[in-house]
Amino acid sequence: MNPCDPIERSIAVTRNGWSVSVLDQRKLPWRIERVELTSAAMAAQAIREMWVRGAPLIGATAAYGLCLALREDPSDASLERNLALLLAARPTAVNLRYALERLRASARPYAGAARVAAAYRCAAAICDEDMGSSRAIGEHGLDLIRRVVKPGSTVNVLTHCNAGALATVDLGTALAPIYRAHELGIPVHVWVDETRPRNQGALLTAYELSRAGIAHTVITDNAGGHLMQRGEVDLCLVGADRVTRNGDVCNKIGTYLKALAARDNDVPFYVAFPFSTFDGTLASGREITIEERDPEEVTSISGQMPTGELATVTLTRSGAANPAFDITPARLVSAYVTDRGVIREIADLVEPEGRTQLQPPP
Amino acid sequence: MNPCDPIERSIAVTRNGWSVSVLDQRKLPWRIERVELTSAAMAAQAIREMWVRGAPLIGATAAYGLCLALREDPSDASLERNLALLLAARPTAVNLRYALERLRASARPYAGAARVAAAYRCAAAICDEDMGSSRAIGEHGLDLIRRVVKPGSTVNVLTHCNAGALATVDLGTALAPIYRAHELGIPVHVWVDETRPRNQGALLTAYELSRAGIAHTVITDNAGGHLMQRGEVDLCLVGADRVTRNGDVCNKIGTYLKALAARDNDVPFYVAFPFSTFDGTLASGREITIEERDPEEVTSISGQMPTGELATVTLTRSGAANPAFDITPARLVSAYVTDRGVIREIADLVEPEGRTQLQPPP
Repeated sequence: MNPCDPIERSIAVTRNGWSVSVLDQRKLPWRIERVELTSAAMAAQAIREMWVRGAPLIGATAAYGLCLALREDPSDASLERNLALLLAARPTAVNLRYALERLRASARPYAGAARVAAAYRCAAAICDEDMGSSRAIGEHGLDLIRRVVKPGSTVNVLTHCNAGALATVDLGTALAPIYRAHELGIPVHVWVDETRPRNQGALLTAYELSRAGIAHTVITDNAGGHLMQRGEVDLCLVGADRVTRNGDVCNKIGTYLKALAARDNDVPFYVAFPFSTFDGTLASGREITIEERDPEEVTSISGQMPTGELATVTLTRSGAANPAFDITPARLVSAYVTDRGVIREIADLVEPEGRTQLQPPP
Repeated sequence: MNPCDPIERSIAVTRNGWSVSVLDQRKLPWRIERVELTSAAMAAQAIREMWVRGAPLIGATAAYGLCLALREDPSDASLERNLALLLAARPTAVNLRYALERLRASARPYAGAARVAAAYRCAAAICDEDMGSSRAIGEHGLDLIRRVVKPGSTVNVLTHCNAGALATVDLGTALAPIYRAHELGIPVHVWVDETRPRNQGALLTAYELSRAGIAHTVITDNAGGHLMQRGEVDLCLVGADRVTRNGDVCNKIGTYLKALAARDNDVPFYVAFPFSTFDGTLASGREITIEERDPEEVTSISGQMPTGELATVTLTRSGAANPAFDITPARLVSAYVTDRGVIREIADLVEPEGRTQLQPPP
């Protein structure tokens, strides 16, 4: 079921817990290189500079980053200082805060070695649950793919960015139902938005799908609307970095444009995410801080030279702006594919007092 | 008024009419290099391989390409053969057909040297009229910019692809009102969609605006919707490759997505084009053949290395699709900015029998 070899697992504990090994996603698919994170500072750097990315994987990396810090110094001061450091690494994905606060709650009642042990248990649980979430999302999303299967024809799915095994601990969110469908022999083809500026689609999603032997075609971010107009997309399936109480979805910049095109062409637009991506503290997407990243991500790009070397080339001499996420209003979402099932309205999950019925496991 | 030096004019007759000099737009903005086109075959290559691009400039280049062919051989057979060759160079821009058919009509009544002279006169007229069209579009579009000017604040315009001096004989279509506003001291700032796959925005539009001293910011094609949601776009202004009788607009791939976002956020969406871009033979955009270009335009990209050299890097090992245009339905267009004025409905220009009131000049 896992489309990646063990050696390519997005995150793994190594050296008996003294380090955490992550795939360096900046170099994929050209180089398969792992980096050993040995401190919270290094984990924060890995998150900030996107050696790791994807909401669930950011959460898992941050959790282990805090474990590494506690191993060095299990004091309350160390816990709070390193938690703040990791929390500041990226502002948008809620899984980061979710993982860190959960780890704090698990570790705080203990001291010394017992605190360290509790932290590692909690980080492992976060990873295990994420794998379980991905599997559940795969099963629930499979039902949506089955709905549009027609005998003798391929199901065409459009996805944006990377919400696969490389964005999670394993398997993925938006890609999980696609892996499951492929496994069951349902013919599926994926339109992969390249996803500028960092091209996670062309680099990571295309790479994952290639490894899994799933038919796919890379397109520019401009092309999806045209394909929907021409009837070449049966459904859109994307991940999320944060989902608010009203159902607004914060996801990779450009998601909103695809949701508009899907609505305009009666193509179902599904958002897949684990419960840890739901942010019950926010009423709507307007309250989310959108990360503004380095303009150099827009004005330059990396790729492979004919010699096999990697090179970065400048694309324009002008200045650039680089908002990393946008908000897709709930009205444009056909359904949410969560680990707890497919739901039409996020509001159904929220009790009157604003607490959620679907609490993360203690 | 002309933002480009004479040496950078997009097209110019050279060597006493034995050649036509065009800017090699594949190398802009890194290299300012001109190419001399000396035959119809070379003009067709320049159009096909996008040394020149932009609907009006394609028309002008094709017209002079046919002149060069007639200079070699002014026979009827030569006229028809070379017209067919040039017509096949790119399928989407209607200006190509418009210019060639007009040149044929002008040249056919004559033979020998008189035919050659008539052809050159016609090509020059096509270029002169295009410059006049650009100036008129600039004036008419200026009114739309003036409508949104607020004292003490800058007008933010979003544009896609390049519809400036480099897409026309001079000045441009969508950029013409911006140049005019800047000239009059109206503070204007342009959000420039990079416009993958060929990045005409990041390369050509940004270059033109830089030279003209107009404030601008390059963004990924994914970002425009987010900026509109945040109220950072006052109006969208794009060009067109073909406009059909019902008002559908064929333009660079991705235009449709911006039109959807503009509608969703009550941002005016204007399409600027000269009358030569109107195709009265087509009822709607569904009848337009959308050019499918080489997937390599998606899977690789060119830019400047730190050494100053240009290099092409591979962006993905997967296969790609590359539709070059899409159709923006008339319902999403707030108004058309033409050389004959600003109009709400293309249908107003079309008489009941399907002929247009606004005939191109004889």
